[in-house]
This record gives sequence, C-alpha cells and structure tokens, in this order.
Amino acid sequence: MTLQHVRVVGTGLIGTSVGLALRANGIRVSLHDPSPTAQALARDLGAGELDVVDEPDLVVVAAPPDVVAGVVVDELNRWSAAMVTDVASVKERVLTEVAASADPAMLPRYVGSHPMAGRERSGAVAAQADLFEGRTWVICPAAQSAPAAVDLVQRLASVCGAATVTMPADDHDLAVASVSHVPQLAASLVAGRLRDISDEAIALSGQGVRDVTRIAASDPMLWTQILSWNARAIAPVVDVLAQELQRVSEALQELGEESSPAEGARGVLARAIADGQLGHARIPGKHGAAPTAYGTLLVIVPDEPGALGRLFNDMGDAGINLEDLRLEHGMGAQVGIAEVSVLPAVVERLKSVLEDKGWSVHE
Amino acid sequence: MTLQHVRVVGTGLIGTSVGLALRANGIRVSLHDPSPTAQALARDLGAGELDVVDEPDLVVVAAPPDVVAGVVVDELNRWSAAMVTDVASVKERVLTEVAASADPAMLPRYVGSHPMAGRERSGAVAAQADLFEGRTWVICPAAQSAPAAVDLVQRLASVCGAATVTMPADDHDLAVASVSHVPQLAASLVAGRLRDISDEAIALSGQGVRDVTRIAASDPMLWTQILSWNARAIAPVVDVLAQELQRVSEALQELGEESSPAEGARGVLARAIADGQLGHARIPGKHGAAPTAYGTLLVIVPDEPGALGRLFNDMGDAGINLEDLRLEHGMGAQVGIAEVSVLPAVVERLKSVLEDKGWSVHE
Repeated sequence: MTLQHVRVVGTGLIGTSVGLALRANGIRVSLHDPSPTAQALARDLGAGELDVVDEPDLVVVAAPPDVVAGVVVDELNRWSAAMVTDVASVKERVLTEVAASADPAMLPRYVGSHPMAGRERSGAVAAQADLFEGRTWVICPAAQSAPAAVDLVQRLASVCGAATVTMPADDHDLAVASVSHVPQLAASLVAGRLRDISDEAIALSGQGVRDVTRIAASDPMLWTQILSWNARAIAPVVDVLAQELQRVSEALQELGEESSPAEGARGVLARAIADGQLGHARIPGKHGAAPTAYGTLLVIVPDEPGALGRLFNDMGDAGINLEDLRLEHGMGAQVGIAEVSVLPAVVERLKSVLEDKGWSVHE
Repeated sequence: MTLQHVRVVGTGLIGTSVGLALRANGIRVSLHDPSPTAQALARDLGAGELDVVDEPDLVVVAAPPDVVAGVVVDELNRWSAAMVTDVASVKERVLTEVAASADPAMLPRYVGSHPMAGRERSGAVAAQADLFEGRTWVICPAAQSAPAAVDLVQRLASVCGAATVTMPADDHDLAVASVSHVPQLAASLVAGRLRDISDEAIALSGQGVRDVTRIAASDPMLWTQILSWNARAIAPVVDVLAQELQRVSEALQELGEESSPAEGARGVLARAIADGQLGHARIPGKHGAAPTAYGTLLVIVPDEPGALGRLFNDMGDAGINLEDLRLEHGMGAQVGIAEVSVLPAVVERLKSVLEDKGWSVHE
C-alpha cells in the first residue's frame, strides 16, 4: 500500500501542519473541517484541496478530543478501504469509544497515534510544515489494527520528519500522565501560588522557578480537556503525589514549631529530595539517547547589543558543536551568564579559544 | 568606613568565592575554617591568607545553617569594631538566635544577608571569583543593625558584582519560600514519580518535564537543611498547595470514573491551570525588569558538528542582540529546534537574514 493521498479532517494547528508537511513532500492532501472558514484558511495556506470525493489511502482525524471518536467512526463508514488514524493526545478512551460504536469488520482499518508536538498558539495560522521534525510520533495499535494501517501511519510520521515509537494505548496514556500531564499540573499549581505574593518577593525569582513554571503559560482550555480525558491515568499518579505532599506539609509544620520536631520530620524532606534526584537522573538526553555527561563552561556576557552574537561568533570560529545552552540573568545587573554544554573532550579547547578572545570563562 | 580587610569564616563554595572576588579587586582577605584542610585549600586557590590576627572591617560568616548563628556571635565577641554578616539562605532564624545569645551592645554590628547564587557542585574547588556577578544579594537589616554595617555589606556585594536588595528577614524568608523552596520541593516530588515508570514511558520525556524537574538534581543534604530551617515560612505555602492538589486529585478521580462526573470537577482543573497562567505572568523578565514580550523565531538545526556554531555566526553577522535562547531536541531524530528570542522590532530582519543564509525559520 502506498501513501499517495491523505485526507485530513480538522484543520487546526496539527491537521494543517500535517497537510503542509505532506504537500511539501509531493503527497496529495484533501482537507475537511466542519467550519467552512477554517478549511478555506487551511487551503489558502497551501495545506491541501477541498471538496475531494476520491477515496484517500489514509485519513488523519485531527479533531478536538471530545468529538474525535465520532469522526473516526464516520470516516471508517464513509470509505471502503482507507485506513484511519487520529492524533489526539489521549489514546485509550478514543480506542474504546471507536470499538464500541464502529462495525467490528472496520476496526482493522483504525489505528490511533499521537505526534508529540504542539505550540502555545493554536489554529491553522500557527501551522508549520516542520512542526513534527525531530519529534516523536507514538503509534498505538489495537489488537484488531491491521499491519497495513500501522505501516501507513509510520510512513506518515516519517514523511513529516518524526521518529515513531509503538506502544499499547494504555501504556501511552500512563506514560504521558507521568512525563507530561502531571508535570503540567505541578507547574500550574506552583505558579498559582505566585499570584498573591508581594512585588518584592516575585522580584527575587531566579532561573529555578522560571524553569519549573514555564509550561504554566499554556492554554487552560486545551489543558482542561487533556487532563479530563486522561483523568483515569493521571488520577493515581496525582493521588500518590498528593499523599507525599501532605506528608511533606506535616513534616514542615512539625519542623516550623518551636518545640523539638519528631525525629522523622527531617527524614521525610531528605527522602523527597533524594527520590527526586533519582527520578530526574532517568530522563534521557537529547534525541532520546541515554543521558550524556556534557562538559559545561560558564561565560560572563555583558548585556549590550551584539554581545551574545560575538560570543556565538567566537564559538562558531572554534568549530565546536554546542550541545546545549542556557542563559541566566541576575536581577538588576547588566550582565548575564551563558552556560555552554559541549562534549567533555572539547571543553579545554573551547575554554582557551574563548579566553584568547577576551571572554571571562569558568568551568 | 572603608572595606580594606575582610575575614571569611567558612571556606566552602560561597566563602571561597567571596574571597576570590575580593582578592581580584585588591581587597585583603583573611580566611578561617574549622577544617585545616579546607582552609589550606582555599588559601592555595588564592582566596586569602591564614592565621591573621589583625581586626578586619567586615566578617563574612559562610558556615552551614546549623552552626551559623553561633559563629556570628563568636565573631562579634572576638572583635571590638568589625561588622559581621552571614550568607545563609534563611535569615530570620539566624537573626533570632544571634539576638538571643549575643550581648545587645554588639547587635548594631550584625546584619544578615543572602547572595542568591549557588552551584550544583560544592566546596572550595567549585568556587569562582565571579559567582555573584549579575546575581542579587539580599540584605536584611534588623532594627538594631547600624547603617555602617548595612553600608559595608552593600560594598561587599558591589565589589562581588552583585546587585543589592534590602528587605526585612521575615519578608526574605517568605519570598524565597515561594520563589525558591516550594518550586524545589515540587520539582523533586514530580521527579520522584519518574523513578518507577517504564523505560518506554520515560523515553517520551520532552522539554516540559525536563524544565519542571531540572532543579531536582540538586544536593539532598543542602536542601534538607534549607527546607528544615525555613520550615515556618514554607509550611503555609505547602499546606495550601497540598489542599489544592488534593482537590485536583479528587476531581481527577471523579472524572476518571465511568459514571458522569460531578459538575465542578472539570472546573477545578480549569481553575488550577488558569491560576497558574496568572501567577506565571508575574515573573519578571531578565535583569529584574518587567516581563518583556520578545519576538520568537524557531530555527531548525541539523545535529551535525558546527551547525549551531554556523547559526550563531549568522545571527552575529546580522548584528542583532539575542535576548534568550532555548534548544529543544526530539527523541530519536537528528535535528534540534532553536527557539530564538529577540526584540519584536528586529524579528522580521533576523528572519530574512537567516532565510537568506539557508536556514529553515518559523515564527
């Protein structure tokens, strides 16, 4: 089976981006959205054609979570041979609803998937042909899914520049609960505690709280839907988290009182921090590889036009591949600190190159 | 009063860095540490002299939290006119203990402070003369503190390259509870939940969970002490957080059940996310300024030696000041995405410059 014609249903950020990526690779795309305005916009952006009646090889359902299962079933009914996938960020509930309402003979043609890409902006105007480049596209075959359906979604992901991972729907939902949905909740709750503190207090914010709360800027509507839909997978994780936080809260209350605290109170805090260190160490490095111990240099950067540009010029001249970079800014001072990560073997060379060019560099 | 001779008691990361910074600015530094090995190492690193009996202008106590108040009182007793500050990251408890055990006539010579700088590595070997450059140094004068004492600590911070902020000790402790200690706890607890998930699940980790849990890599010993010492200020914040998480947990459990959930469950989630958005928006931009709306470009970067260097070269050629930069890496794919923040007025020019040089650039 070939991937020559893809139908995209739902022309928001994800659907339109899929259309753009496929068109850029010479694949025919037909578009449909219940909103005539939305589908016309996607067409005008070059994501595909409208009002196509030919049967596609693959249908990509990129509808909001609360209607996605119904649209999948409609598309299975509409075509006799086309494979159908959806791209919702929660998978088991879609599968259950599709299996409950579709003709069982049609189920081999359906396989759920989840491209792990998004933006803070939504809608077709925010779409990008390369939205999926370098991202992971999870495929969740059901027992009934035909190998040909899985194969077509793998080709779709590949054309879009994404790497595929295959796992059961319930495993996917458990995984994103821990690595995406619970961190989102924690970031939002911690950020929520910043609403009522004084201006003087918020002014002391450093890089730590910035990192912890960055994703708290995300869209409340979208996240309320995602959290509601994956509630069954998230609830047990949040339940344990809530119990642990309650224990920490009680330990802090004991420690905050004048009288000598119970022996275990300090141990509760120590264990929470130590467990976090162990969990954090499991997160893989870039490109899904095992964590790599990079060498790090700290470079002092004056806050003046072109200063960072000069630094990057000088690093480029050294011909060294930068693996990661973090900028830190202190409050009320006109310098920043660039934390430059490179492979350990080139740390010394980069340091001497930068120092020769007059930079203040520290390991 | 002049700052010509500073005595540093406690030659770990902070004390040794203070010594290095002062020496680099031609100020005499005498060092003392209860560990002969530690103080000899700091001297060998060039942080100051040992066994000095001359009275200093200022004593900087950089001892562990659990002994700092006792050392402050010893130093007040030892000298007749020297001002004394400590650099512990929790301030009210030190002040209370000092006031309780020092001769009241000596209290004008003491003022607590807190340079907001640190590293994941500890000890004199990790010390840097510029550890405080661009950072905030909080000064917490007590009612009894003499203006001359405050003045000397301001000069100390200034020589070290830090910007000073003055606030009462209890305000400081409340502020760091919300903007530093509670985020640390949340990061550690979320990271702790990653210990037991499958390898397949942890492999789906993206930039969100990386950012939320970055500071979970910090030293458990140090953080247990800090959290214990500031327990009184942290406890009420964590108590509210625990109650909110409990409400979210109950809402998720309701939503996860088959039967139709109570009306308010979805609202609990929506409010948590929306409140987080409001709190996050209060965090100031770099250098303590009000948050600036930067323009952002996304640049696709192949993972090959020199690719980022070339990008930085090309940005430098454009003469545009980069305000912030974030690198994102997808799993299993050989490209990364650089999120480049610049002033809104230069976004279009930077985009066209980079596109002319062949980069794939997106707004």
